[in-house]
Amino acid sequence: MSEQKIDTRLWSTKAKNLTPYVPGEQPKHDNLCKLNTNENPYPPSPKVAAAITAELTDQASGLRLYPAPESDELRQSLATTYGLAPEQVFVGNGSDEVLALVFAAFFMKERPLLAPDISYSFYPVYAETFGVELITIPLRDDFSIDPDDYRRPCSGIIVANPNAPTGLLLPLPAIAKMASEHPNAVIVIDEAYIDFARAEEGKEVSAIHLINEHDNILVTQTFSKSRSLAGLRVGMAFGNASLIEALTRMKNSFNSFPLDKLAQAGATASLQDPDYFSQVCDNIIKLRDVMSRELTKLGFEVIPSHANFVFARPPQGNASEIATSLREQGIIVRHFNKPRINEHLRITVGTIEQTKRLIKALSELSG
Amino acid sequence: MSEQKIDTRLWSTKAKNLTPYVPGEQPKHDNLCKLNTNENPYPPSPKVAAAITAELTDQASGLRLYPAPESDELRQSLATTYGLAPEQVFVGNGSDEVLALVFAAFFMKERPLLAPDISYSFYPVYAETFGVELITIPLRDDFSIDPDDYRRPCSGIIVANPNAPTGLLLPLPAIAKMASEHPNAVIVIDEAYIDFARAEEGKEVSAIHLINEHDNILVTQTFSKSRSLAGLRVGMAFGNASLIEALTRMKNSFNSFPLDKLAQAGATASLQDPDYFSQVCDNIIKLRDVMSRELTKLGFEVIPSHANFVFARPPQGNASEIATSLREQGIIVRHFNKPRINEHLRITVGTIEQTKRLIKALSELSG
Repeated sequence: MSEQKIDTRLWSTKAKNLTPYVPGEQPKHDNLCKLNTNENPYPPSPKVAAAITAELTDQASGLRLYPAPESDELRQSLATTYGLAPEQVFVGNGSDEVLALVFAAFFMKERPLLAPDISYSFYPVYAETFGVELITIPLRDDFSIDPDDYRRPCSGIIVANPNAPTGLLLPLPAIAKMASEHPNAVIVIDEAYIDFARAEEGKEVSAIHLINEHDNILVTQTFSKSRSLAGLRVGMAFGNASLIEALTRMKNSFNSFPLDKLAQAGATASLQDPDYFSQVCDNIIKLRDVMSRELTKLGFEVIPSHANFVFARPPQGNASEIATSLREQGIIVRHFNKPRINEHLRITVGTIEQTKRLIKALSELSG
Repeated sequence: MSEQKIDTRLWSTKAKNLTPYVPGEQPKHDNLCKLNTNENPYPPSPKVAAAITAELTDQASGLRLYPAPESDELRQSLATTYGLAPEQVFVGNGSDEVLALVFAAFFMKERPLLAPDISYSFYPVYAETFGVELITIPLRDDFSIDPDDYRRPCSGIIVANPNAPTGLLLPLPAIAKMASEHPNAVIVIDEAYIDFARAEEGKEVSAIHLINEHDNILVTQTFSKSRSLAGLRVGMAFGNASLIEALTRMKNSFNSFPLDKLAQAGATASLQDPDYFSQVCDNIIKLRDVMSRELTKLGFEVIPSHANFVFARPPQGNASEIATSLREQGIIVRHFNKPRINEHLRITVGTIEQTKRLIKALSELSG
């Protein structure tokens, strides 16, 4: 509603002072080339719809009954998939809800939280929501993270890896070092895009297995990107059982049943189709290479991406102008009007048809 | 996990001090007569599954895309159903999430919140979660609410109506009076069970339409009970547009997309089957009368219920013992081990078969 009509008389100070997160827009036009919110261009595994349909027609359980409050079956499936115990797994209503609970459970402390200055823009919002002091640490000029910059007293560190919107990957040894240097801080690695990351031969990219060696590493992931389930709202966290227990208590002091029955069934089924999952991720990586190459040909500075988006600076740095022009042609990309990154565009990796349409439009703009 | 194994070293003080809400158990045995969590014995309208199936097979939108963050279509349908504007409607992941956001948006203030001493046991948990001082006001000896007891400085008042676990209804004039007496406090009427309430001829029971006269009344409801959708997690709030705006900001500072696509589609469809809805509510009211009459015959003191449960005291007051005996026979009812109500049982209204099984078991216990 328009600002002048809002009566804040009855609001809490908290409500008055909040600056909410603004997600990328979700317009509903036909023939839109939507490359702004990092959705997967492929549908989820067919097993997902099959499992949801089975759940819908199961008269014995059915939607009239409450779901399992701790999503036991889904957590068991995640544990099996990643070689963990169910006690090391937490699930929530999208990784956004998981991250909110993480802020409440681990960062509401005297000491500040550390995060890169350029990262997921929901982090400062959570900090405000939960009264957490957030100190942002500047990325290097090439947008990479220097772990040594994080050597200061803190309640925790949160890093998106691959980082958003840069797409850069922090290697596991740097994460392990951070965790060792801060035994009394929780190191949160937000791996929303990790399934699109590829390291050199034989090296792991996910910090999941570091949780067995470091009781202060918590890894968050999501079904929204690599598993094509943004519409189903399922996210998860992996960590030492004591960290997971804190999240569970926090959840049960806020909302006991955040995952409905269909979301639990659909997410569980998606884990049971590993071949489909690998193929989708591989295809997106190939399409990312195509898009990166074509953008480079057009003179864009393209940061080598480990995510399902590409972060690139057009030759003239006129990113905002280009985003507006693309929009007029029904192509939506994301521009952040923020210091240091306002000359870049974040473009989701789409289908080959979408990529061609984007590149054609950009060629015409520059030609 | 077992208490002695938990390492709380990395937890926030908030996480350490919480005493989470404990929902009624959700056991999964065959042939269980589950009368403990006030689920609806009837399935949801067939339109719900049809709408969810349609959403699943819609290739143009599909689960790979994010849902509408503000659930526009569902809010529009609720507005139409109840004769309101969409700006007067908020939706969330079950009314539990809606209530959590209500506590943050309106009750995080210097002045205390007032609530009856016997009511929904999540209220004190929310108060702890959000650092809200809660003053509980004793119900009268007959478990009714005396509105005059609430005449004291406060940030707000929260009342479940019908109250849980008593099932008693507070008439609308008392609610309007409370709102008028506290122009600077938010009066929250939690109407989880309102669709099962019936007043004298021609009188309304829901406070929904009081929101047009009182800018400080907020009404919460849920799809879990009367619409048989506990498994789908959809709740809502109705109020002045400025109150709704505060909830929206609070939501967007916590989790932008709490309702997945299937929940939005299913809940919207359930509103489009008003005849089915009325019939389910009428049937449950009839079954409630049957159960109340039979319990009375067995010597129970039965409080006249306006909900889909009955709150009753067995002749010997040995409620805990009876709950245990019923459980051994696969019949689960809810016993609260709390002062003033530990001699009562809260029994969900089930099907006629479940009611017969319950009454038979109780007869044998007393015989």
